[in-house]
Amino acid sequence: MEDMLVWGRQVLASQPFSMLLGAELLAFSEGSAELKVPIRPELKQQHGFAHGGVVSYAADNAITYAGGSVLGPAVVTSEFKINYVRPAIGEFIVARAAVVHAGKSQAVCRCEVHASSDGKESLCAVAQGTIARLGQSSGSQ
Amino acid sequence: MEDMLVWGRQVLASQPFSMLLGAELLAFSEGSAELKVPIRPELKQQHGFAHGGVVSYAADNAITYAGGSVLGPAVVTSEFKINYVRPAIGEFIVARAAVVHAGKSQAVCRCEVHASSDGKESLCAVAQGTIARLGQSSGSQ
Amino acid sequence: MEDMLVWGRQVLASQPFSMLLGAELLAFSEGSAELKVPIRPELKQQHGFAHGGVVSYAADNAITYAGGSVLGPAVVTSEFKINYVRPAIGEFIVARAAVVHAGKSQAVCRCEVHASSDGKESLCAVAQGTIARLGQSSGSQ
Amino acid sequence: MEDMLVWGRQVLASQPFSMLLGAELLAFSEGSAELKVPIRPELKQQHGFAHGGVVSYAADNAITYAGGSVLGPAVVTSEFKINYVRPAIGEFIVARAAVVHAGKSQAVCRCEVHASSDGKESLCAVAQGTIARLGQSSGSQ
Repeated sequence: MEDMLVWGRQVLASQPFSMLLGAELLAFSEGSAELKVPIRPELKQQHGFAHGGVVSYAADNAITYAGGSVLGPAVVTSEFKINYVRPAIGEFIVARAAVVHAGKSQAVCRCEVHASSDGKESLCAVAQGTIARLGQSSGSQ
Repeated sequence: MEDMLVWGRQVLASQPFSMLLGAELLAFSEGSAELKVPIRPELKQQHGFAHGGVVSYAADNAITYAGGSVLGPAVVTSEFKINYVRPAIGEFIVARAAVVHAGKSQAVCRCEVHASSDGKESLCAVAQGTIARLGQSSGSQ
Repeated sequence: MEDMLVWGRQVLASQPFSMLLGAELLAFSEGSAELKVPIRPELKQQHGFAHGGVVSYAADNAITYAGGSVLGPAVVTSEFKINYVRPAIGEFIVARAAVVHAGKSQAVCRCEVHASSDGKESLCAVAQGTIARLGQSSGSQ
Repeated sequence: MEDMLVWGRQVLASQPFSMLLGAELLAFSEGSAELKVPIRPELKQQHGFAHGGVVSYAADNAITYAGGSVLGPAVVTSEFKINYVRPAIGEFIVARAAVVHAGKSQAVCRCEVHASSDGKESLCAVAQGTIARLGQSSGSQ
């Protein structure tokens, strides 16, 4: 739904850290979200790849959006786990998250982060975590 | 060892993303590392706390340092898991990581992230992960 | 390949714990594995569901098989993470694991565990973890 | 408190799977729990070590007890993550779990699993996870 994407982008714009990183919400619908982060020079580590912290930011925020799409706007990531599988090389990364299971107060989500280089995507990380309604958990974000 | 801290700070200074975030290496010795990130306005989310991505960056990078202290400089985080337990409110966060077990090519590390406000610390996240020697794994960072 | 399934079943039969639990390897091919565990009374917890330890055993062993299908027979689970999403109620659980990314010495795998009751499956857990070639890591199993 | 240990042992005795594995609750007090599992032949894998599923059972159940010590008896493990660091060789394993942070409906706990051989302990796994009050989450166990 177009309205949902508009709302999601307003939320993102209200997060100074997401703006510092240059994140963009590409898609947002019930049960899924897609977040893009351009790999600008200041987001790299010493070997020229996107820093792991940028990749995990994208995964974490994408699963928060996916969870929020079914639980409502007041949600946080309670916990997540990420496996880095390849260096994030290219022009941007895109994190695609989906809800695996949603209860009343929590949702379990998964995410894949791809790096895009010259129009070709390669998987750089996979993540899995729990999103909780605020006031139902002990999370931060 | 003072030399080790000097070397660690040079590595940190070579990571553009760590510089963007304003990270500082407070301590670095065999088996442990301590990383501080001031909670500047641009590192916050919409509720005024440090963004979860900043907290997970600190945890991830601190365990990479802890692992690197026993495995050598060419290491990456293969994977990690983080539980956020409280909003990160205050002037800065500090991530303290320690090696739990080190093998030849990998080390398992744990980390606690505290937020410091008016000189008082409160735990905001705990993490656990695997650091691998480059060329031995499939990680990125 | 039929030979692969035969070999996989021989490995399972050589694991006393898998035999104690009554595990069966339903499918085993390059990049994936499917493991079934009947929910016998002695595998339950106090509320009548399959114990979480049975569900995590199935997830852990299924990802070990999936990883072994691409890395060779001498593999161990280095680490994994599991989210329980529903009680495991029914006649049996089935864990389906697939390789997400394989390097030379490690593979990252994901798994879904479903409970089957009266022919109807429901998701009860999702897992993600790292499988390593023996001698390359510090894992056990 | 002695009463707490007595109650904890009654709960364990009501779990058929824990009885099948021969688990014993060694200690149980506010914020911590200690669970022992003798490494009987039927709990091994093909190399003669305790199966990873036994190690993860012990970690999972120990953190459930630790969480239950502060949240009350009706709790489940929502999720956990485990890193295996050494083969579990010896006469028994012991999982020691402690609460890291407790909220109203959830607690985050950590656990170390040691194998004991000829009176000498060695770390074989570390775990971290979330325990939730029943009805507050979507977990199983």
